[in-house]
Amino acid sequence: MVDEPERTPDERGTPRLVVVAGSTRTGAIDSGAGPISAAGADKEALYDTPGADLEILDYGDVTHAPTVPVSPSGCPTPAVHTRAVRELLGFDVTCIDAGLTRKSGAPTVSLGGNAGGDIRHEEPVGNASELFEAGAAFGRALPDSELAIGETIPGGTTTSMAVLRALGERPAVSSSLPDNPLGLKRRVVEEALASSGLEPGSAAGTPIEAVRAVGDPVLATVAGLIVGATDAGISVTLAGGTQLATAAALARHAGVEAPLTLATTAFVADDESAGVEALAVDLDLDLRVTDPGFSNRDHPAMAAYAAGEAKEGVGMGGVLWLAKRDGIAMKAVRKRIEAVYSRIVRP
Amino acid sequence: MVDEPERTPDERGTPRLVVVAGSTRTGAIDSGAGPISAAGADKEALYDTPGADLEILDYGDVTHAPTVPVSPSGCPTPAVHTRAVRELLGFDVTCIDAGLTRKSGAPTVSLGGNAGGDIRHEEPVGNASELFEAGAAFGRALPDSELAIGETIPGGTTTSMAVLRALGERPAVSSSLPDNPLGLKRRVVEEALASSGLEPGSAAGTPIEAVRAVGDPVLATVAGLIVGATDAGISVTLAGGTQLATAAALARHAGVEAPLTLATTAFVADDESAGVEALAVDLDLDLRVTDPGFSNRDHPAMAAYAAGEAKEGVGMGGVLWLAKRDGIAMKAVRKRIEAVYSRIVRP
Repeated sequence: MVDEPERTPDERGTPRLVVVAGSTRTGAIDSGAGPISAAGADKEALYDTPGADLEILDYGDVTHAPTVPVSPSGCPTPAVHTRAVRELLGFDVTCIDAGLTRKSGAPTVSLGGNAGGDIRHEEPVGNASELFEAGAAFGRALPDSELAIGETIPGGTTTSMAVLRALGERPAVSSSLPDNPLGLKRRVVEEALASSGLEPGSAAGTPIEAVRAVGDPVLATVAGLIVGATDAGISVTLAGGTQLATAAALARHAGVEAPLTLATTAFVADDESAGVEALAVDLDLDLRVTDPGFSNRDHPAMAAYAAGEAKEGVGMGGVLWLAKRDGIAMKAVRKRIEAVYSRIVRP
Repeated sequence: MVDEPERTPDERGTPRLVVVAGSTRTGAIDSGAGPISAAGADKEALYDTPGADLEILDYGDVTHAPTVPVSPSGCPTPAVHTRAVRELLGFDVTCIDAGLTRKSGAPTVSLGGNAGGDIRHEEPVGNASELFEAGAAFGRALPDSELAIGETIPGGTTTSMAVLRALGERPAVSSSLPDNPLGLKRRVVEEALASSGLEPGSAAGTPIEAVRAVGDPVLATVAGLIVGATDAGISVTLAGGTQLATAAALARHAGVEAPLTLATTAFVADDESAGVEALAVDLDLDLRVTDPGFSNRDHPAMAAYAAGEAKEGVGMGGVLWLAKRDGIAMKAVRKRIEAVYSRIVRP
């Protein structure tokens, strides 16, 4: 009999990971020459991916979704990587449904209702204000001292680019595809601004209007969450790339002055089109880039990432940084990623 | 840098705790001389308690519910005790909403919809079959090898007594009150059977009918969960007293032959009116009783329990057993209960 284990989840200094999940019809846009999102390559995958990601994170496997999300080239969702780190660190996970097209089998706090619309049409996020307020109330009420926030929403890099343009910020844009369909994204973003009667920068200082006009439900919710959590004195790490940076931009435009950390993967940081480093400087974000050492590894959950596919998501860059901070070697992380992949990705 | 922590949550052998939460208008019955349930002493508390319990378990404090549930005598909800053990063991928690009157701020898998009705009226659980099937599907899909199942539903001991009578099993009945209002419960149960046209034992072999006629939404869901999980080869520990034993009875009447463990507190086991030991024998349940050593302790979270108040709930008896099995001394558990209590119970 031991008297008490040396460390408890509360005493480890490992924060709760809140993952905000949602859908936007923007993710279903396909130019004919190719889709806007990796998940958008297959409409069923587009609808099932966010719910599946939450299940993998919470249960270590899908339970309700039909399959583990894997791209046509064989690249698995970053939920696999985040789950692997969770099995090493043991942090708590809280999933928020900000508007999923298909419900998840994972437990969620439901703040939303509807999926977001295609940003080329009017008011893709009609409930932006309600989501922002609900996110703020949720964040304000948490008893945690530190929080990491991640996202899962196919199409989210395009809505983020549009929101950054509307706010007048640097329109950094990453992609889950190895060849970022930047031309298509730019066309969609310009159409979105035009249909909303917005000029670049004309929504500066009115973040809720920016999301309502050209954003998605996850951005509205995460922005509110940042506002509420920092109000309550909780220290916030944004666990992701350009989408989380965009949520941070919204929070800055809402007046948040608290220090914010952006923790992302080397795959996003190395992507010149993402321009996340400059964006972090603009927004006064403390940038943490973690390289999990996937180059030259002959594994489907690593080689594709090293080649620029998927890159980030479901909190991956944030939890890699937490692992590093907690003294976990990336070798152990990779070993666990292999184990999770073998366990749950069916051939 | 360490290569990998010695144990991970997955390798500890500490199972996921699934807590099924719901409401039944049966919990609001008051004879005029006194209420049927400790939570029923105050209608607001009755509605807020299950959601608050889930928040305490998940976040370590209430976030959406107005207060931590504490009885008029000062006895706190067993969610405090279960949370304390969770902070020592680090097990995962999954909350199921089987029909809450008020939504919880904790993430839930929503299987239900409506709160249960007063069992003295017709069909208090009109959706018993749907809940049973949803619970079974949920249990069958979990990737875990071992599962603990707890409950939170004020009024649940009375509905359980009615279901046991309808099934023809020993009508064991515990209480969250120090003086079990057995007379009132018996009258309510007889009225419930009469209004449903049931005789004692006439629902033997038809568990869904028993729940539909005189049960509650949590019983329907937990019974299904046991069926689905054992079907999938998951080993199941029922973390609680007479309510979990009743769910086990329903599962046995549905044909479950798998071994089942019932892990409860010494407070339930020592309560003669509960008769849980004999019921466990009848139902072929492997009974585990854990005494957290609360007698002669001058603490509101202990003295009241030692005096027979609250006794059990929100998985308390189950997680105490898991702690013991994992080599955690009850002294450490009591120390952590004091810490959680000081942190969250406001004067």
